[in-house]
Amino acid sequence: MDLNADLGEGFGIWRLGDDQALLNLVTSANVACGFHAGDPATMRRVCAAAAERGVAVGAQVGYRDLAGFGRRYIEYEFAELRDEVLYQLGALNAFCRAYRTRVRYLKPHGALYHAAASEELPAAALLAALEDFDPELPVLCPPGSVLAQLAQGAGVRVVAEGFADRNYLPNGRLVPRTSPDALVTDPQEVARRAVRMATERVVVTVDGGTVPCVVESVCLHGDSPGAVAAAELVRAALVDAGVTPASFA
Amino acid sequence: MDLNADLGEGFGIWRLGDDQALLNLVTSANVACGFHAGDPATMRRVCAAAAERGVAVGAQVGYRDLAGFGRRYIEYEFAELRDEVLYQLGALNAFCRAYRTRVRYLKPHGALYHAAASEELPAAALLAALEDFDPELPVLCPPGSVLAQLAQGAGVRVVAEGFADRNYLPNGRLVPRTSPDALVTDPQEVARRAVRMATERVVVTVDGGTVPCVVESVCLHGDSPGAVAAAELVRAALVDAGVTPASFA
Amino acid sequence: MDLNADLGEGFGIWRLGDDQALLNLVTSANVACGFHAGDPATMRRVCAAAAERGVAVGAQVGYRDLAGFGRRYIEYEFAELRDEVLYQLGALNAFCRAYRTRVRYLKPHGALYHAAASEELPAAALLAALEDFDPELPVLCPPGSVLAQLAQGAGVRVVAEGFADRNYLPNGRLVPRTSPDALVTDPQEVARRAVRMATERVVVTVDGGTVPCVVESVCLHGDSPGAVAAAELVRAALVDAGVTPASFA
Amino acid sequence: MDLNADLGEGFGIWRLGDDQALLNLVTSANVACGFHAGDPATMRRVCAAAAERGVAVGAQVGYRDLAGFGRRYIEYEFAELRDEVLYQLGALNAFCRAYRTRVRYLKPHGALYHAAASEELPAAALLAALEDFDPELPVLCPPGSVLAQLAQGAGVRVVAEGFADRNYLPNGRLVPRTSPDALVTDPQEVARRAVRMATERVVVTVDGGTVPCVVESVCLHGDSPGAVAAAELVRAALVDAGVTPASFA
Repeated sequence: MDLNADLGEGFGIWRLGDDQALLNLVTSANVACGFHAGDPATMRRVCAAAAERGVAVGAQVGYRDLAGFGRRYIEYEFAELRDEVLYQLGALNAFCRAYRTRVRYLKPHGALYHAAASEELPAAALLAALEDFDPELPVLCPPGSVLAQLAQGAGVRVVAEGFADRNYLPNGRLVPRTSPDALVTDPQEVARRAVRMATERVVVTVDGGTVPCVVESVCLHGDSPGAVAAAELVRAALVDAGVTPASFA
Repeated sequence: MDLNADLGEGFGIWRLGDDQALLNLVTSANVACGFHAGDPATMRRVCAAAAERGVAVGAQVGYRDLAGFGRRYIEYEFAELRDEVLYQLGALNAFCRAYRTRVRYLKPHGALYHAAASEELPAAALLAALEDFDPELPVLCPPGSVLAQLAQGAGVRVVAEGFADRNYLPNGRLVPRTSPDALVTDPQEVARRAVRMATERVVVTVDGGTVPCVVESVCLHGDSPGAVAAAELVRAALVDAGVTPASFA
Repeated sequence: MDLNADLGEGFGIWRLGDDQALLNLVTSANVACGFHAGDPATMRRVCAAAAERGVAVGAQVGYRDLAGFGRRYIEYEFAELRDEVLYQLGALNAFCRAYRTRVRYLKPHGALYHAAASEELPAAALLAALEDFDPELPVLCPPGSVLAQLAQGAGVRVVAEGFADRNYLPNGRLVPRTSPDALVTDPQEVARRAVRMATERVVVTVDGGTVPCVVESVCLHGDSPGAVAAAELVRAALVDAGVTPASFA
Repeated sequence: MDLNADLGEGFGIWRLGDDQALLNLVTSANVACGFHAGDPATMRRVCAAAAERGVAVGAQVGYRDLAGFGRRYIEYEFAELRDEVLYQLGALNAFCRAYRTRVRYLKPHGALYHAAASEELPAAALLAALEDFDPELPVLCPPGSVLAQLAQGAGVRVVAEGFADRNYLPNGRLVPRTSPDALVTDPQEVARRAVRMATERVVVTVDGGTVPCVVESVCLHGDSPGAVAAAELVRAALVDAGVTPASFA
């Protein structure tokens, strides 16, 4: 099972999350590429640390929106979005090159993540950028999403990810963030869910049942209080259950 | 003799210069990489057209300063500047990859061009970025500049460039832009100078003499009225004189 | 009848449209405030020229999107949008103050114009910014739009505007830009329409009929070839018909 | 004695310093205006809280450099800088208006603070912006600086500020930040110095002597660990010494 987290999400003087702590826990680092967060110095620092630890680097691409942290939907045209994604892929890859490695996957961020999960235009734009950059690279996204479907159709490898700290509906989708029970806050419960995803390929739903959750990666969060401790618990619980964290790349 | 020009210097809805016309004349395209000018859609358009015509693409890297078009000196620290240059190199390279080619050289823009010609810190930062990205790539810069000297010391190939539309001092340097006789405005005279640079390796100076001008590339400008016509004249005059325009890359 | 046009829509080195020519024709200048276009130096230049000619200055506020020229819909939250609009109003007002005048009205730009015409959230955010800045200022917008309705409900003066160079549907709405007959390209016809808006308060529709068009301002465009000549024709035709161009402010 | 601090220096999702804690201690809030830090939502939040507490709001204007937090010197031309400062003054003032107050003073930030303290061009540009915006407003700056001198010559009120947490040279200037003894780190010593500035109008120098330090405001810092506690100590020590913290405005 792969463990991924968003990293390098500061900008200039501003920091977000504890990159160094998370780099000791994850097997895949979603590195922000400068459009919604991430500046060149931060990108270098994260790529260097990831290379040192053997953590795979993925391009966490987002809308051009520093002020909104890429969380606001922007109605891009297809070609504009494709080109902005390609630009970000290339920029991050230069820092990987500096440490004798390369970008290993693509994961959209924030509003682009959600848009590509449910709409054809942004999903197709992401895949077109990948086609230009390196069609062998996988996309990291929710199973069953529009992006996953289009990727499969295009022969692009899909790496499905699950969220151990989010509640799921009986239909296998996430409880929307606007709902009060969107988040799983008990770290022990988060760890248990990660283990069940890895070993039983199911996740508990809000109504107490279970639903299949076949994923290759579990997404960890590092930008809230206690997040690093929770991530440590997830990793430890997986190891205890005999699951070796390992990159899919 | 190589002919280079700055291209792709629009941003979003805004355009600057006539990219398509210049692409039919130059052998090397200095493509803006998004920091002082240039957006992803423009970068794609220029890279596609350059690839089609066999024009070599170089990274025209600049300070992060869209509002000032990269013409204002910014006091960067070494590492910051190195990383911002590396980011731009990578971003542009992604568009070259899309057209089965790659970035072939580095040329700093505006205030960074001038700073790297006369100061060690920016020159060293450019070379450090090149070292990370691809130490085989040449830098395009004025002969005898600090950048040229540091590059030679570091084993990086230097491609010296001359300006047929700028007046030279007897010491071989350019007449500063603030001087009324900085520019050569007569297109016929510009063409004659380009030919002498190519065939005699000299340039006429403001006092009527000549000074050695050993360059591998002549820089053409495309952003002023009549600039494209002048560039056409330069190319035609070179061909008439038996000089074949060809990329150094 | 007021004549308004978008002005100051360059950024840094880049220009768009012929500000000086339009300033001799319009009675109201919609000045870009730096978020989708417009930089401080341009804002000063336009405000100075407007003050000299007695042209009223309005805040042409837009989304924070230089790369997209404010033409891409961005899903702002209410408070974010209100605050970004308030910021732009204040910034422009400082340049008006420098020339002993002040911002006289508000007109949203691009995607924000369209969003506020049809959705409550952006319309309410614009009005909330106006409430904070100066509730006496009018909004310039299409008659019958959501923004117009909310403004009337809030006691804010609405100045309705018509487009003499756009075709109208029998229901009084504009033919969408995606339609081939969206634009009226014959300058004489544009001028005739402006005169009928001013004198008969109707506009010809695509099916050859007429529909009421009760507006206080006609919007002129200056960013396409021939636009200034067309604008001159509109103004001259109005004057010939006994209509004096005059600001509503 | 006035107590001032830099506030509102986050951007979008990113925060810096503890605005709310400092707002309970200072009498003057230097609010970032969006160019080096500060976004409209943050500006509103700080202006609202300042108005509620009777804290005077000043425009903390900076270079257009979010990536460098305004700490990199940028070689602006006079008119460009004047206009960027005027823009920021107006933008902040709109948020003050929303809370029935207005910008009460100007304080440059970072590299612009240092440039205006020692060079004529940036100092004159700041004063020209003030002249356009409101010539009655004071500037907050180091005593004896170029900005202070030019302001006095122009009839602009100068409010001199001292730094209780910085070491001074015998000539009355600050020990440069690059020096190991630039900072005073003992909070008790910082408080003692603030009291001597207020009551004896002197400051201890690095060589153990004292030098006159005639200031109307003491600058507090809030962006380092322990900064808020140190600021609380300064305020309490002043009150204990019979000095009432009060805005100069």
